[in-house]
Amino acid sequence: MRPVAILGIGQTIIDEQWEKSIRDIAADAVITAMHDAGRESAEGLFVGNMMSGIINGQSALGPLVADWAGLRGGDAAKVEAACASGAAAFRSGLMAVASGELESAIVVGVEKMTDRHPHEVTAALATAADADYEVDMGVSFVGLNALIMRRYMYEYGWKHADFAPFAVNAHANAVHNQYARLRHTITAEEFEKSAMIATPINLLDASPIGDGAAAVYIVPADSLLPGNRILVAASTSATDTIAIHDRKEPLFLAAAYQSSRQAYQQAGVEPADINVFELHDAFTIMSALSLEASGFAEQGKGVQLGLNGEITPAGRIPVCTRGGLKARGHPVGATGVYQLVEVVQQLRGECGETQVPDARIGMAQNIGGSGATILTHILKRE
Amino acid sequence: MRPVAILGIGQTIIDEQWEKSIRDIAADAVITAMHDAGRESAEGLFVGNMMSGIINGQSALGPLVADWAGLRGGDAAKVEAACASGAAAFRSGLMAVASGELESAIVVGVEKMTDRHPHEVTAALATAADADYEVDMGVSFVGLNALIMRRYMYEYGWKHADFAPFAVNAHANAVHNQYARLRHTITAEEFEKSAMIATPINLLDASPIGDGAAAVYIVPADSLLPGNRILVAASTSATDTIAIHDRKEPLFLAAAYQSSRQAYQQAGVEPADINVFELHDAFTIMSALSLEASGFAEQGKGVQLGLNGEITPAGRIPVCTRGGLKARGHPVGATGVYQLVEVVQQLRGECGETQVPDARIGMAQNIGGSGATILTHILKRE
Repeated sequence: MRPVAILGIGQTIIDEQWEKSIRDIAADAVITAMHDAGRESAEGLFVGNMMSGIINGQSALGPLVADWAGLRGGDAAKVEAACASGAAAFRSGLMAVASGELESAIVVGVEKMTDRHPHEVTAALATAADADYEVDMGVSFVGLNALIMRRYMYEYGWKHADFAPFAVNAHANAVHNQYARLRHTITAEEFEKSAMIATPINLLDASPIGDGAAAVYIVPADSLLPGNRILVAASTSATDTIAIHDRKEPLFLAAAYQSSRQAYQQAGVEPADINVFELHDAFTIMSALSLEASGFAEQGKGVQLGLNGEITPAGRIPVCTRGGLKARGHPVGATGVYQLVEVVQQLRGECGETQVPDARIGMAQNIGGSGATILTHILKRE
Repeated sequence: MRPVAILGIGQTIIDEQWEKSIRDIAADAVITAMHDAGRESAEGLFVGNMMSGIINGQSALGPLVADWAGLRGGDAAKVEAACASGAAAFRSGLMAVASGELESAIVVGVEKMTDRHPHEVTAALATAADADYEVDMGVSFVGLNALIMRRYMYEYGWKHADFAPFAVNAHANAVHNQYARLRHTITAEEFEKSAMIATPINLLDASPIGDGAAAVYIVPADSLLPGNRILVAASTSATDTIAIHDRKEPLFLAAAYQSSRQAYQQAGVEPADINVFELHDAFTIMSALSLEASGFAEQGKGVQLGLNGEITPAGRIPVCTRGGLKARGHPVGATGVYQLVEVVQQLRGECGETQVPDARIGMAQNIGGSGATILTHILKRE
């Protein structure tokens, strides 16, 4: 495999974009990434998306977005891995360029979720769980995460309030991100008092959906001069059972363990070398589990990192520096690419108030389902 | 890119498989392909599927099928390009192995379409068209193909009966394929008398849906001894607008022209060198357009190949030698992989009554939408 670099990035605001079609939103991010890369075209397009067939009545986003963004004719396909669709599409684009098949590619993650009734969106999100053995029993996606969180609190003795720092940090960072959906701070008190959704998950444990797209432009690394290149130092993907009851340990993200360890090995780094970690905080419990499985905390101790103030931009392992899923927003198939774009922004030093000083190595971890597909990417500036 | 070979194949019957879940059907094909390859596992799994989220309430087929087929933990994702999802997944798997990222991969195409009311399936299929500018006007997918066929007949002066050989040949070949859905012959008279669906497309112009899966096991070519290896000599993908009214020439498959020409160049062959051509006969009109754009007939003359008897297993350019979409069946996201499996069977000499003598070079072309995404693959025995 030849090394690959990220040359350009683009993103749209995450919001209710009712005046735009899914093709418009995706093309906005694609064109911005092309401009940022200083290119006018690309040989291939990889679209990360989960639910356009269900929610937007539109399959075949590959040719649709290619046409709308001025890339008609070229190679284009969609990649889906539930909420990890964005990173899965990035990995496909990466292999296309790494193999020598393409000299340039754009990866765009896009989701348009707010046109339909929330009940329909909840049903569409539940397709990320096991249709035959979980959803058929009546459990929703947030319900599954609630079961995990409840068990975690019971098993390790944490109170709900102990999860507050994950949400508070995300909101504090989103204030400074012009693309974020929720640009306001919250307090630990507000976190505790917010409306219950599925015990023990309340409104401020959960990330908001939204319409949005993010894109990256990738090229062979050797086509750029060394110095300030953003290199893809590791790309890994691992799976676990979709159904949580089939796992040996429902409180341990085995696929995060596997993909992070393989990523550290590929990149030749250790957890302590990671300057910034854009993790998948769809719910606060997922932040804790991701930090634990990825080697930043012992099992059952992930919550402590937040309580110790170690997850802020000035902390030991900054997470969600642009707002994370919690406050930047979670347009599901786009999220994995937003994470990568944000890591690039950190490595370029473009993050202003939430900039991690001297960030040189960043990691993004995208989770599909409740841990069924987990991709880890490590980027390095060099 | 390092060359890649197909080491094993597997397929299920195409039928109404109500007693099986989509994961069962996919795993049946995956396990058969592993056995055929003489392997017990694979590093990656690529699933081609169009509509599981819409029809089966199940996204994330990657980890679902990996788990069920005994590949839990490994890399897995779904690739979607409407009816070309199978070939698009194959191309992703190919690049993963060609890049050196994986040493082995299984590509499985799967679709389970018969559990729902035909109206719902028709609506799901229509997501392959342009939701905003075609489907919103009330046109279905068969309706779009009917408009193309009608224009073709008007423009070039063909009668409906002239398309009969495509359907007659497909049915004649399917009789000898144990996995085919419609294993009975039809006559040209029956073709003309069958029920009208969307003028001028009648029942015997159209391919049947179904539940089914097909899989291939791929490895680096240099891991096998030369001689009877099935090499992937070309893999190309091209796109056009989804909406037919946006195309310069609605009767010309520009993406088939582009992807076939690139494929001939990659493989170092000409159309005359192709011994067998598994084309995408979703409707008889598509057979004609595919043959024309791929260089086997002049524009407007594709129908003549059928009338001249050149498309049978003994003809100049045998197509649909195992029944094609028309009679083997068209489980949409699986079709592209069925085509590849059938080309392998021809190159191995396993096709009995419909064997093309001395087949050494075979081509498969998978069409998404009415020509929006077209992938061409050329396989060689050497």
